[in-house]
Amino acid sequence: MRPSGRKTDQMRAVSFERGVSKHAEGSCLVKFGDTHVLCTASLEERVPPWLRNGGKGWVTAEYGMLPRSTGDRMRREATSGKQGGRTLEIQRLIGRSLRAVVDLPALGERQITVDCDVIQADGGTRTAAITGAWIALHDCLKWMEERSMVKVERVLKDHVAAVSCGIFAGQAVTDLDYLEDSSAETDANFVMTGTGGIVEIQGTAEGEPFTEEQLGQLMGLAKAAINDLVALQKSAVA
Amino acid sequence: MRPSGRKTDQMRAVSFERGVSKHAEGSCLVKFGDTHVLCTASLEERVPPWLRNGGKGWVTAEYGMLPRSTGDRMRREATSGKQGGRTLEIQRLIGRSLRAVVDLPALGERQITVDCDVIQADGGTRTAAITGAWIALHDCLKWMEERSMVKVERVLKDHVAAVSCGIFAGQAVTDLDYLEDSSAETDANFVMTGTGGIVEIQGTAEGEPFTEEQLGQLMGLAKAAINDLVALQKSAVA
Amino acid sequence: MRPSGRKTDQMRAVSFERGVSKHAEGSCLVKFGDTHVLCTASLEERVPPWLRNGGKGWVTAEYGMLPRSTGDRMRREATSGKQGGRTLEIQRLIGRSLRAVVDLPALGERQITVDCDVIQADGGTRTAAITGAWIALHDCLKWMEERSMVKVERVLKDHVAAVSCGIFAGQAVTDLDYLEDSSAETDANFVMTGTGGIVEIQGTAEGEPFTEEQLGQLMGLAKAAINDLVALQKSAVA
Amino acid sequence: MRPSGRKTDQMRAVSFERGVSKHAEGSCLVKFGDTHVLCTASLEERVPPWLRNGGKGWVTAEYGMLPRSTGDRMRREATSGKQGGRTLEIQRLIGRSLRAVVDLPALGERQITVDCDVIQADGGTRTAAITGAWIALHDCLKWMEERSMVKVERVLKDHVAAVSCGIFAGQAVTDLDYLEDSSAETDANFVMTGTGGIVEIQGTAEGEPFTEEQLGQLMGLAKAAINDLVALQKSAVA
Amino acid sequence: MRPSGRKTDQMRAVSFERGVSKHAEGSCLVKFGDTHVLCTASLEERVPPWLRNGGKGWVTAEYGMLPRSTGDRMRREATSGKQGGRTLEIQRLIGRSLRAVVDLPALGERQITVDCDVIQADGGTRTAAITGAWIALHDCLKWMEERSMVKVERVLKDHVAAVSCGIFAGQAVTDLDYLEDSSAETDANFVMTGTGGIVEIQGTAEGEPFTEEQLGQLMGLAKAAINDLVALQKSAVA
Amino acid sequence: MRPSGRKTDQMRAVSFERGVSKHAEGSCLVKFGDTHVLCTASLEERVPPWLRNGGKGWVTAEYGMLPRSTGDRMRREATSGKQGGRTLEIQRLIGRSLRAVVDLPALGERQITVDCDVIQADGGTRTAAITGAWIALHDCLKWMEERSMVKVERVLKDHVAAVSCGIFAGQAVTDLDYLEDSSAETDANFVMTGTGGIVEIQGTAEGEPFTEEQLGQLMGLAKAAINDLVALQKSAVA
Repeated sequence: MRPSGRKTDQMRAVSFERGVSKHAEGSCLVKFGDTHVLCTASLEERVPPWLRNGGKGWVTAEYGMLPRSTGDRMRREATSGKQGGRTLEIQRLIGRSLRAVVDLPALGERQITVDCDVIQADGGTRTAAITGAWIALHDCLKWMEERSMVKVERVLKDHVAAVSCGIFAGQAVTDLDYLEDSSAETDANFVMTGTGGIVEIQGTAEGEPFTEEQLGQLMGLAKAAINDLVALQKSAVA
Repeated sequence: MRPSGRKTDQMRAVSFERGVSKHAEGSCLVKFGDTHVLCTASLEERVPPWLRNGGKGWVTAEYGMLPRSTGDRMRREATSGKQGGRTLEIQRLIGRSLRAVVDLPALGERQITVDCDVIQADGGTRTAAITGAWIALHDCLKWMEERSMVKVERVLKDHVAAVSCGIFAGQAVTDLDYLEDSSAETDANFVMTGTGGIVEIQGTAEGEPFTEEQLGQLMGLAKAAINDLVALQKSAVA
Repeated sequence: MRPSGRKTDQMRAVSFERGVSKHAEGSCLVKFGDTHVLCTASLEERVPPWLRNGGKGWVTAEYGMLPRSTGDRMRREATSGKQGGRTLEIQRLIGRSLRAVVDLPALGERQITVDCDVIQADGGTRTAAITGAWIALHDCLKWMEERSMVKVERVLKDHVAAVSCGIFAGQAVTDLDYLEDSSAETDANFVMTGTGGIVEIQGTAEGEPFTEEQLGQLMGLAKAAINDLVALQKSAVA
Repeated sequence: MRPSGRKTDQMRAVSFERGVSKHAEGSCLVKFGDTHVLCTASLEERVPPWLRNGGKGWVTAEYGMLPRSTGDRMRREATSGKQGGRTLEIQRLIGRSLRAVVDLPALGERQITVDCDVIQADGGTRTAAITGAWIALHDCLKWMEERSMVKVERVLKDHVAAVSCGIFAGQAVTDLDYLEDSSAETDANFVMTGTGGIVEIQGTAEGEPFTEEQLGQLMGLAKAAINDLVALQKSAVA
Repeated sequence: MRPSGRKTDQMRAVSFERGVSKHAEGSCLVKFGDTHVLCTASLEERVPPWLRNGGKGWVTAEYGMLPRSTGDRMRREATSGKQGGRTLEIQRLIGRSLRAVVDLPALGERQITVDCDVIQADGGTRTAAITGAWIALHDCLKWMEERSMVKVERVLKDHVAAVSCGIFAGQAVTDLDYLEDSSAETDANFVMTGTGGIVEIQGTAEGEPFTEEQLGQLMGLAKAAINDLVALQKSAVA
Repeated sequence: MRPSGRKTDQMRAVSFERGVSKHAEGSCLVKFGDTHVLCTASLEERVPPWLRNGGKGWVTAEYGMLPRSTGDRMRREATSGKQGGRTLEIQRLIGRSLRAVVDLPALGERQITVDCDVIQADGGTRTAAITGAWIALHDCLKWMEERSMVKVERVLKDHVAAVSCGIFAGQAVTDLDYLEDSSAETDANFVMTGTGGIVEIQGTAEGEPFTEEQLGQLMGLAKAAINDLVALQKSAVA
């Protein structure tokens, strides 16, 4: 029933390619099917002004899409003079998600910025970005550990990964691609930790409102998928 | 236990003052305790470019805060040259929430813009805004009905109202005020229709991740509160 | 002759509602008829960079209009990316008017920002704003006096109030409302102190140039009106 | 008593150099002493959107200062991303002043933009700009008359010129230069027509408020000065 | 002598990966050593306003760098609100270079935008971008040819490729990498066609001025390198 | 053959008027025929942040065109909110050209900003600007020498001047004016020192690519012209 022929609870092929950037302290090219996001983690030895001398660090994220990552070419945000509402919303979400599993005092007064740039989009860019950003962040911390700056396991408290689930053609399905996303009745993004805690849930009825029961089904699919994603993260960084 | 002395499932005093604007086709000053939001609905006889000649209308929202609606004065967004990420996120949410209960073809090729301006803030401005915006929208449609432009009940399919619930001091509570909001472990906004359908749910762990069980508790509180809000809307427009 | 039926030298009903903001150190909702402006005074314990270590304070103002404060909805300045020329002109005028009656060294190295936000507009928003801003400023200083930071009477040297007068249908009239303003031949704003000193006068011929004699008539009306406004301010803060 | 040794009612040396631009339809380099403003009038065969198909034309102005026209180098407005409040205020004033003496329907559906760029500043740039802009506008209309597009005397109803007067060291003086302007107690700009009508008056107390009597003295000085300026305009275009 | 151990006239390893974008009509990931640029060509069935109804098409380019494509993270241009001078300079150069080999009337009233996004930078990003953009443009035209819209060989008159040469440590060398670029005495970019015509030459003395003889040496190196690049382009699209 | 009747190797009349600004430390109105550029050099006793405490100074340039310096009125960059790509490109070029002949450590920790504002344009504004900017810079340094701040000959190592040459109607010609520039096949700007060193060369094929031989012809013309310009600079500052 799904355009891609996938089963309702089947994710797309997921892969992580680590160390793709010569310059970044940590980097990962994450693929959820045809959605490809390049995540780079950059370390700076200073925190934003409002955190100075507070003894703790900061993790933040920025998000962008290459102009032709999409079916139709989008206007480059640098030429329109500002980041749009969707971009700001997504990068705030990625930042919150990462901070949920980071011990900021253990990081020390440093900032890590994870840039998530969508090279190719086919739905689910924000969930792929969060999942890949965790790898980039992990590798940045490992780079720091090799220089005796931090202990990875003290700073990074848990895994974090994300997936979108939705009601498509009346059925709850996992990991919407673009075709599904653009006609789904309900679209919900779930961000969860490796131990199953919920970090963020955003569910939106695109057409008809949804029911608590449907939300429960989506949550069930999301838990299973994120469980798998965390397992993939684990083997990626092993 | 709550700073305000409220019970866990108790909302703040809610009121709607209709017709507060001499100029707007519909308007409402909504109060959730000390959170006061002025909602005005403005009718235009044209739709955005991408909807022209499509035979259907559009409902959108804008959100703003007066600089001293908050405890510390905030910078005026007009002077910083752009709306911030939080503002864009909220006004997109209000717009989606209203459109969930509007039959856009029945509106005809017209746009209604609901401006939600926070006069005074004490937490929950977005949920108060959605709840009051529905009244302003309703009254704008009524103004149109009086001019034989539309039938209210054909355009406005249902009520929509919103509330924030959260985990505060380990307990699920309804309608967070600023004091609670700033130290809540989890904060979730629920937007629901008069018939109990879920339009939007946004839950965020501020500190520790939350569990599915906690989400269920928050959902239960939200359903009861929104039920009450819808009843108040009904008597307000009766 | 006047659309409102007022006499040539008759102001609209004027009222001041103090303490309307839970957060601001001073606040006032001023009404000149259907023109309603919310004025809040915010205290900051620091001055702009160019005044630092100079031993004196600063008073400034910002002005804004809610999008549907007017007959047709105006574009929100935060979305157009900047404050327009009219806005900048008005907020500079309000700031100068307030500073004319403040002893900046007696204020100490602090800044008070008075935000004047037009909730509903019916002509004369800038003159109402100045008149109400004085109350908000007064109450902010009183708040400071209660905390032994300043003496009100040492900082605030005098009252300041403003009114617009104009030539409408060939006659000099006081306190133009929107209908009059939009067809007046000449429009002049007067800002004066409680002791009758002129702080600012701005007269503009909208159609035909005006004569020195007409200017004299407008000045006469303005003096009388401002005298009344100052009396109202006095009873308001008594 | 005046830093320049001028008498209280003495203007600086005033000169108009016409036709200084190879490209503009009308142009004038106006000098009020060391204040030099280049005024160019540019004709376009179309009006702003809000005037289209209304059968009348438009005259507008823009104002700018070269970065080192002033004692200290100012930041170039093109690099700060917007025109400041003072610039907007001045260019609105110049436009209003010119339109006060133009018959817009007689101009036809065309726009004339007068750019006033300050090459060197020594106080009084806005009044010099208005006075010189009238010459540039006149010459643009003459250029049009030579091409049988309009009759100058039907479009240009009168002269318009401007001067600043102020209270300096306790005395009313004409045509403030920078030294006087920066320490004047009161500064007032007068814009008047060739027949003595007042187009605009803007008086500001920089320190102490001023009296009606002082305003009368300034007005007297301004009338005499503008009378002279109009005579100079007449011989310039003769 | 070169940090990379290359001979003076030796380019870095160059490769073209075609068809890397699922969405773009033409795309190429070009690598000059560690400099990696993703070029996508996007077809639109309309031209910029100033070309409408002129019967000819347009080819333009945009350029960007991912924030961590460089050794230190750069600020994202979308957050700083505008494209910097260097970016604008480079994208104008790429556009001119491509148009030099395109028959715009043969393209018809369509626009092709080639986005060149630097994934990883190690010097020479603009020359790599031009060289790869030609491939993306070629493939876009081929896509159009397959749909009978154009003939590739009628629109694309020639190859175009580019290389930077410079004086490093006193010697003329080919294809500067970042280490060389940052300490080169002279840096010159050459853009040439497949038949050896010069499209653009930009030579800059970073320290001491250079001589005509040195320019001749750089030109000689550039001709040889561009000859090789064109041969590589030919085999890539064969 | 040339529209102006000039010989192929003939420059337009060139003149330098020094000391045209009352305020600037150095200034020059340079004319290349009908191209007039006002250059002012402004001294500041501080350097940009990235140079602080480095013991050396900085020379930079800004470029602008008055709106009606051109045949058709151009939009003022201050109103469009940013400097365009061409402006940024030119001012970067002027800055680099001047720095090529300045000993920055000998200048001390100070910045000189040379503003080049085009009063009237007829082609070659950037080359006139560079040539005139050298005079303004020289005079600024002389002003400093008179105050014992620097020695001119230690800071200013050489002359720098510029000219554009191009292929017009098949022939290599010197100093293109607007008519030639707009139809030239090739346009090249040369910046050279008084001792014949090349500081910058920018050659662009507007239509057909050009050959190495043609580049040699343009170089020959440029050397002769710049030789003359330097001689004129010498007599101007003698």
